Amino acid sequence: MHDTLTTLTELLRELPGIGPRQARRLAYWFVRRDHAWVERFARALIAARDKVKTCDLCMRLFPSEHTASRCSLCSNHHRDAHLLLVVEKDVDLENIEKTGTYKGRYFVLGGTTSNLDKEPERKVRVRELLARITLPNDTISEIVLALSATTEGEDTVAFLKEYLAPTCTNHALKISILGRGLSTGTELEYVDADTMKSALLGRS
Amino acid sequence: MHDTLTTLTELLRELPGIGPRQARRLAYWFVRRDHAWVERFARALIAARDKVKTCDLCMRLFPSEHTASRCSLCSNHHRDAHLLLVVEKDVDLENIEKTGTYKGRYFVLGGTTSNLDKEPERKVRVRELLARITLPNDTISEIVLALSATTEGEDTVAFLKEYLAPTCTNHALKISILGRGLSTGTELEYVDADTMKSALLGRS
Amino acid sequence: MHDTLTTLTELLRELPGIGPRQARRLAYWFVRRDHAWVERFARALIAARDKVKTCDLCMRLFPSEHTASRCSLCSNHHRDAHLLLVVEKDVDLENIEKTGTYKGRYFVLGGTTSNLDKEPERKVRVRELLARITLPNDTISEIVLALSATTEGEDTVAFLKEYLAPTCTNHALKISILGRGLSTGTELEYVDADTMKSALLGRS
Amino acid sequence: MHDTLTTLTELLRELPGIGPRQARRLAYWFVRRDHAWVERFARALIAARDKVKTCDLCMRLFPSEHTASRCSLCSNHHRDAHLLLVVEKDVDLENIEKTGTYKGRYFVLGGTTSNLDKEPERKVRVRELLARITLPNDTISEIVLALSATTEGEDTVAFLKEYLAPTCTNHALKISILGRGLSTGTELEYVDADTMKSALLGRS
Repeated sequence: MHDTLTTLTELLRELPGIGPRQARRLAYWFVRRDHAWVERFARALIAARDKVKTCDLCMRLFPSEHTASRCSLCSNHHRDAHLLLVVEKDVDLENIEKTGTYKGRYFVLGGTTSNLDKEPERKVRVRELLARITLPNDTISEIVLALSATTEGEDTVAFLKEYLAPTCTNHALKISILGRGLSTGTELEYVDADTMKSALLGRS
Repeated sequence: MHDTLTTLTELLRELPGIGPRQARRLAYWFVRRDHAWVERFARALIAARDKVKTCDLCMRLFPSEHTASRCSLCSNHHRDAHLLLVVEKDVDLENIEKTGTYKGRYFVLGGTTSNLDKEPERKVRVRELLARITLPNDTISEIVLALSATTEGEDTVAFLKEYLAPTCTNHALKISILGRGLSTGTELEYVDADTMKSALLGRS
Repeated sequence: MHDTLTTLTELLRELPGIGPRQARRLAYWFVRRDHAWVERFARALIAARDKVKTCDLCMRLFPSEHTASRCSLCSNHHRDAHLLLVVEKDVDLENIEKTGTYKGRYFVLGGTTSNLDKEPERKVRVRELLARITLPNDTISEIVLALSATTEGEDTVAFLKEYLAPTCTNHALKISILGRGLSTGTELEYVDADTMKSALLGRS
Repeated sequence: MHDTLTTLTELLRELPGIGPRQARRLAYWFVRRDHAWVERFARALIAARDKVKTCDLCMRLFPSEHTASRCSLCSNHHRDAHLLLVVEKDVDLENIEKTGTYKGRYFVLGGTTSNLDKEPERKVRVRELLARITLPNDTISEIVLALSATTEGEDTVAFLKEYLAPTCTNHALKISILGRGLSTGTELEYVDADTMKSALLGRS
């Protein structure tokens, strides 16, 4: 039978980005903290688990003390209800909000898919996205696929475009993707062909 | 008032080696885990807090289901009771045990001190160490200061040597420090003067 | 008086990106090479110095065995003579050529300038650029400022736009800059406000 | 046929630690330097090649204007003539000299060997070393093998010990290796078994 310190270490190793040495160091760190702090941390975990819900419109996690089933962004009537930005994960949404450059609605896919996946529907919430964009009385007119400019992001874009195409045609919904070009920090000495091509086409 | 997700993020930021972005990512990760896992993790934290004790002989943390007040190393009669290896922290002790090269007893200082510290006694458990080496009927004959070969380690060694000197003289206790020289991976092209000097003196 | 090895080391330290240790290692490396190789290298240096010219149209360096005063790109009648891409340095031009995405002409500025520079004309070849775009019988209709998406790049773009504005108006020349947006590898979790704004505006 | 810039780039790619991009950047850098500098650099290369000799006693490279066949260290009568430190390469010797901790003689092996090498004599100057330690009227009494604490270093030490053993026995020469232990910067949390074992044995 494992001792309590080893059990804690093994659970900590499941955390993303935490290696075996750091897990052990964290376990000792937790145990050396005073009891009140550990109690507070454990309570915060349980509280987050109990109070954080998945918004039934955009699928993002949001903290709710009440019986609300929609997050603050989805309930905000000042947001542009014609645009739906589809992102991979909660932290992408948070980062985009932080840039202050987008004022429409969101949808969180919950992951990416790859061309090699047999069942991409299990990796990303496409069925929920389909349901979202076909809600009666909805005002969305454009879906912006805001995936990272990586292989997984591009595979996911390709899959979504194909999956959503018939519905978008039927409902007169435009599908767009984020513009490509030089991003902050790009140096011409190292620019790749895809980025250069987009940067030339998109010159202004 | 903070929402539960932000509260959890802020507590996670207190963890050593976790930056603001990783804290946020971990908070989301915890909330996305199934409820049973979060419950299990919280229970493991509380259990570790409740079951892990500080050994009253070597000051290391050890998991104990019973009423034992001494860790397994201190209670092990096969360990050499003439040698006491003084280390900074629990993970140092664990790593040294893993090398399988030391068979004596340990003492965990709980930190390091610097030449600039006004009250070094508050940074390291010297009073407890003094008590440990003056236990009646004890058999220790040599104290090995096993601190890292860093500025803090060397400052701590200097402080301990001076602090323990009178007692060691009175009790005929030898104080030693770990040998210096080339460590695994040291390249002669980059070797520093201190290491080279020790390596030359310690040639064999 | 310096010995020859130290003299060589000091000259090698002037090379961009070479630190003192690497300079020393290179000096020994050169001396350990066989004599024929060193001879060949020295000859290649002198040959490059003697044979490489600055193209009097685009200011890039080009190797020329003959009396040509224009580089192969400037003499190539299949390149689009309506577009002039202004780059900072020779390796930028080479990298863009490697992407195979641009078929027009080039101009090499030879550096960047900063808003703090008192005499930006001394950092970048603007006078030569002005001469280039006002050549009689020239067919250029658009100047694309292809600077890196860095502070220096943006300062240089701002300076060039202002400096060239009157001439461009007089000669009906369009000035454009490369499009901004997600570049290959950009992750939404880390995207900055400028890039996100451009990516949204440039969605397609 | 290659142009001169490409020829120079390809020669620069042979330099140790220089990748293809840096080679190209260096080629352009050389060509952009003024002619006098390139001339000076080429002359320094040729001068180093012509003036730097291999010391016929220790095999190190040394700059010599005269007809001397021995380097300044080998001709220096104040160096301890009882100790011979065997190092892998010239920069190791230079670094050890810089530490100011060694006052004896040197021998430069010119490389390392591995247990897998069929003909280790071709990788390291053992025949020259053997000749060196059996010089008539020589006063060496101890050979210190100062190889890096790496696999190659240890393989080389093992080979040298075996190769030199009969001669050392016949000539009453002691063979030693540099002391192992904590080197500057070693942290106990990460120390490996070999280093810990040496550090414990060498405690003082």
